[in-house]
Amino acid sequence: MEPTRNRSIGGRASEELSPLDKRIIEQLQQDGRRPFTQIAAELGVSEATVRARTNRLVERRILQIVGVTDPLRIGFHQMAMIGVHCDGDRLVRAAEQIAELPEVSYAVITAGQYDILVETVCGDNEALLSFLVEKLRHIEGVRDTEAFVYLRIVKQAYQWGTR
Amino acid sequence: MEPTRNRSIGGRASEELSPLDKRIIEQLQQDGRRPFTQIAAELGVSEATVRARTNRLVERRILQIVGVTDPLRIGFHQMAMIGVHCDGDRLVRAAEQIAELPEVSYAVITAGQYDILVETVCGDNEALLSFLVEKLRHIEGVRDTEAFVYLRIVKQAYQWGTR
Amino acid sequence: MEPTRNRSIGGRASEELSPLDKRIIEQLQQDGRRPFTQIAAELGVSEATVRARTNRLVERRILQIVGVTDPLRIGFHQMAMIGVHCDGDRLVRAAEQIAELPEVSYAVITAGQYDILVETVCGDNEALLSFLVEKLRHIEGVRDTEAFVYLRIVKQAYQWGTR
Amino acid sequence: MEPTRNRSIGGRASEELSPLDKRIIEQLQQDGRRPFTQIAAELGVSEATVRARTNRLVERRILQIVGVTDPLRIGFHQMAMIGVHCDGDRLVRAAEQIAELPEVSYAVITAGQYDILVETVCGDNEALLSFLVEKLRHIEGVRDTEAFVYLRIVKQAYQWGTR
Amino acid sequence: MEPTRNRSIGGRASEELSPLDKRIIEQLQQDGRRPFTQIAAELGVSEATVRARTNRLVERRILQIVGVTDPLRIGFHQMAMIGVHCDGDRLVRAAEQIAELPEVSYAVITAGQYDILVETVCGDNEALLSFLVEKLRHIEGVRDTEAFVYLRIVKQAYQWGTR
Amino acid sequence: MEPTRNRSIGGRASEELSPLDKRIIEQLQQDGRRPFTQIAAELGVSEATVRARTNRLVERRILQIVGVTDPLRIGFHQMAMIGVHCDGDRLVRAAEQIAELPEVSYAVITAGQYDILVETVCGDNEALLSFLVEKLRHIEGVRDTEAFVYLRIVKQAYQWGTR
Amino acid sequence: MEPTRNRSIGGRASEELSPLDKRIIEQLQQDGRRPFTQIAAELGVSEATVRARTNRLVERRILQIVGVTDPLRIGFHQMAMIGVHCDGDRLVRAAEQIAELPEVSYAVITAGQYDILVETVCGDNEALLSFLVEKLRHIEGVRDTEAFVYLRIVKQAYQWGTR
Amino acid sequence: MEPTRNRSIGGRASEELSPLDKRIIEQLQQDGRRPFTQIAAELGVSEATVRARTNRLVERRILQIVGVTDPLRIGFHQMAMIGVHCDGDRLVRAAEQIAELPEVSYAVITAGQYDILVETVCGDNEALLSFLVEKLRHIEGVRDTEAFVYLRIVKQAYQWGTR
Repeated sequence: MEPTRNRSIGGRASEELSPLDKRIIEQLQQDGRRPFTQIAAELGVSEATVRARTNRLVERRILQIVGVTDPLRIGFHQMAMIGVHCDGDRLVRAAEQIAELPEVSYAVITAGQYDILVETVCGDNEALLSFLVEKLRHIEGVRDTEAFVYLRIVKQAYQWGTR
Repeated sequence: MEPTRNRSIGGRASEELSPLDKRIIEQLQQDGRRPFTQIAAELGVSEATVRARTNRLVERRILQIVGVTDPLRIGFHQMAMIGVHCDGDRLVRAAEQIAELPEVSYAVITAGQYDILVETVCGDNEALLSFLVEKLRHIEGVRDTEAFVYLRIVKQAYQWGTR
Repeated sequence: MEPTRNRSIGGRASEELSPLDKRIIEQLQQDGRRPFTQIAAELGVSEATVRARTNRLVERRILQIVGVTDPLRIGFHQMAMIGVHCDGDRLVRAAEQIAELPEVSYAVITAGQYDILVETVCGDNEALLSFLVEKLRHIEGVRDTEAFVYLRIVKQAYQWGTR
Repeated sequence: MEPTRNRSIGGRASEELSPLDKRIIEQLQQDGRRPFTQIAAELGVSEATVRARTNRLVERRILQIVGVTDPLRIGFHQMAMIGVHCDGDRLVRAAEQIAELPEVSYAVITAGQYDILVETVCGDNEALLSFLVEKLRHIEGVRDTEAFVYLRIVKQAYQWGTR
Repeated sequence: MEPTRNRSIGGRASEELSPLDKRIIEQLQQDGRRPFTQIAAELGVSEATVRARTNRLVERRILQIVGVTDPLRIGFHQMAMIGVHCDGDRLVRAAEQIAELPEVSYAVITAGQYDILVETVCGDNEALLSFLVEKLRHIEGVRDTEAFVYLRIVKQAYQWGTR
Repeated sequence: MEPTRNRSIGGRASEELSPLDKRIIEQLQQDGRRPFTQIAAELGVSEATVRARTNRLVERRILQIVGVTDPLRIGFHQMAMIGVHCDGDRLVRAAEQIAELPEVSYAVITAGQYDILVETVCGDNEALLSFLVEKLRHIEGVRDTEAFVYLRIVKQAYQWGTR
Repeated sequence: MEPTRNRSIGGRASEELSPLDKRIIEQLQQDGRRPFTQIAAELGVSEATVRARTNRLVERRILQIVGVTDPLRIGFHQMAMIGVHCDGDRLVRAAEQIAELPEVSYAVITAGQYDILVETVCGDNEALLSFLVEKLRHIEGVRDTEAFVYLRIVKQAYQWGTR
Repeated sequence: MEPTRNRSIGGRASEELSPLDKRIIEQLQQDGRRPFTQIAAELGVSEATVRARTNRLVERRILQIVGVTDPLRIGFHQMAMIGVHCDGDRLVRAAEQIAELPEVSYAVITAGQYDILVETVCGDNEALLSFLVEKLRHIEGVRDTEAFVYLRIVKQAYQWGTR
């Protein structure tokens, strides 16, 4: 699955989720491997419906069902959140190029002091340095970076429910 | 599943993963619903082994298998990464209390300009304000907060592999 | 008219505006003195309805109809936007006390680097100093202030329309 | 009404207000719809004088009489104050171009850490992102922006009187 | 002569200078030793008048006539401008106590990022450290200090004229 | 007298002051108008020697004897210390050009967060804006400026003695 | 050898080095193992003199002769320079307590944005976290810390010569 | 000995140290002049082995044996740690050029707010200014510098042991 979303600005048409979509998402937020039969029973619909809806949500990239780990505990010793400042109008394009780098697990455009927040997962110091110098700072429009090196991940949760 | 990890400092004993654990994790990073039979076939072990190992990884809180969505696209209009400064030696304890707040999806202790980075998922301005004033800033040791409000999530990926 | 709103957190119930309310607001954003007869004609309702709705909007403090000037051009030589940092959980209470100070023309709770942004209108340096030292910094919970002194107001507009 | 003022630097000649102008402004700061007959009676001049003076103040762009609302309460969910840094000598020209953008309700040149403070009124995250990337950062001379997203407007007042 | 001014806030009454006072100040800004006879001739008044006015300006602490040197060139190797942050309402009192320290040559209350700017003249590193630790930071209300060590003084001028 | 010193870097040869020079400076730091006969008597040398030495110190621009006032008290209502960031290697040249601007009373190259600290004496907001935009930011190499507007000058002293 | 120096402020009496001391230091800066016989021959003194002087310099803690390595290359994967802010007048005492921590290789009191710069040598993330939380932030007077994690040491040199 | 290491990124192959190498390093960390015979006896190997291994470690630039002093105590009165910001992808190349400057004693690439931390040892203010303006800021890619001037070195230690 290709995790990057390259939406044009404003192009959020047709993202409305049906109430059933939302109930399915909530079930899978609790447990990504919950059998479709069980979800179907709880929601009072057929298993085929649950399966079809789920597949459609994944195809539309609204939902990923994944095994999530703490990288610091499986051998990636140098994770960091990196605050990025971009030149003037390169912001969205730079964010999309950053999202294509394999070391990047998370990228968000923010309204605050940093233009983009980038989470990166590296094995050690030299890998983080290579990432910064040979990749991130080569992207056109990236002007400044400040890394917040992780010492410990205290929480990762995906059970927000829906609205 | 309770996603918060309250490890005492230094308590990382016995976290070594076997090569088979790592292969299973990599399979589930690709697709959290991949059938155990398929994983077993690919790795040349029995389905019972894959199932047992997976359950053990989940129990040890090394692995979560979850449905991940982009909150901004399912009705949470005010997400933010919040940089937190803590008083002196309250850092780890405060981080653990922050992790218990339901609005918090992610919490990391960092070595940089902020002591803790906290991702929060709120429905609107007033909910974010309530979270900041009535919850986050009530935690003992939290001195300062600066929120980076999300405008767009560009990437969320979980396929780092293992080391 | 008392311009400060002391709403309890979350208390935004019943603020829904009718489509007619919105049309009236838009007319008055264009010109605060537009005759009710003219507004009534444009919107196809009676003058009494326009008058009643307008009065109700003003009573509910959703609308003010005011003469707005540029203070720097009518003798107030030291205006400033002041970024305020507050202690922990005193944020909302401090903001409300700040709003009661007569030198304050504008006060906003923000999610960024400053907790509260306060616009102040003073006659000269000494008045600004008195305001800072004898009033603003006496409010419980105000820890730090940083003033951005105005050199020129380039735009003040109130024609956003409604949503 | 075109709210932007494009004064050349230093060109503030003839802005002296007569004492009567000031008394009229003070009346309209209290209530923008106060009848001219009432103002005339209070100030001991004819209604025609009050009307003529008021019109002249509006034409000179010293006074606006407008309906002012809290955008956060009428459907604009993402307001922000944006601190802007400009390149060297582009400051005044950039401020004037910023003032022409319809999303901008307020723009001030300041002497502090930011060159220009810009208040913007947007409907949601994506609108704020579009504003930042496609408009504000396209203006020549705009180098950096930092947004302070509004959580709640606590005070908007226009009753400063005159000097 | 005691150079510190301990004015109470707002107490600037009676500081109006006569046009003759201003002409005398301008003469002495050009050359502090210009003979009173020469000034008297230029301004068309008696020497006694010039002398009396000058003495009065000095007594009122509006004027100092002094030999000014560049400390870096006469053996003070560690000068610094020090930005000071103060607690809440201690600002004016702290500034006055700072002004009494003999190492302080200049102290200003500002509206920006620092509450007080303090210029200090020290002989070497250890003297600056002693000043910071044993004096400046002992003053009640002084919370934080940041020193900008001088590398070279490029200009010191006193010829502003008057207004 | 031209107060700016345009020394080439490192060119501090021949600045050694004799013990007598230092004693004369100390006398004039106390009172810039002290008669040479009185100084001569105190130091046990002839008046001609004191006069010759003083003139030589002034010619070498080591000493200025001037009337010093508080600009805020004689009609300059907008003073500021301005922190300047310069491009790479333009620092010394930019500082020298800044020193030539008549609004600048003080300019120092520092080792801290700002490259140059500039004190400016202006009559009002518009004069400060003109200075910033039309003068300071036009100098080649000036990249950023941050003004600390003065609210009150608490101390100006020139009695450091010598070393 | 105990590397911490606990000098009382100002206590630098008797640190004058003879010209011969300086020549010996320069020889050992080049190569810490240079035989005393070779140094003696180069400087034209006896070996016994060189040995005695060297021992005296080491005893006075003016000189250390040590094997210096790059910790990042011998297994310490998480080095950092840590900027520390201290409360008011605790600066020197806190610096001395920091110097006693075994993880600290370098500690300097500075005049800039940070009060103390501390270099620390840790094995991994958790060790750095323990150091920060359980040691550094427990020292009385330490208020804030910001770590600059090392990615690569590019130079370590000790050949400054003497003055 | 040339202290700069110009390793290509990632080129850390063959840096593994044998247990004997580590034991020798630990001995020399304690005392850089400890006789090889004594080290050989403690480690149970021949003196020739210790000498050969040590020479090899020095040749590979893993180890320096040097006389280390506190520059502030031997006549260098203006030391500073300088935080450097670099343009995009010039980081590693700029760091290597900085490392070649003789005034630089230490240079580290970091992951935090500054790209490179540079320690410099200068005799006085003018030397530090010359270094900044004529050398450091002339290096291509160096955009900004902020110096933290040293007031006192509290600890320099080299006894970390090995891992």
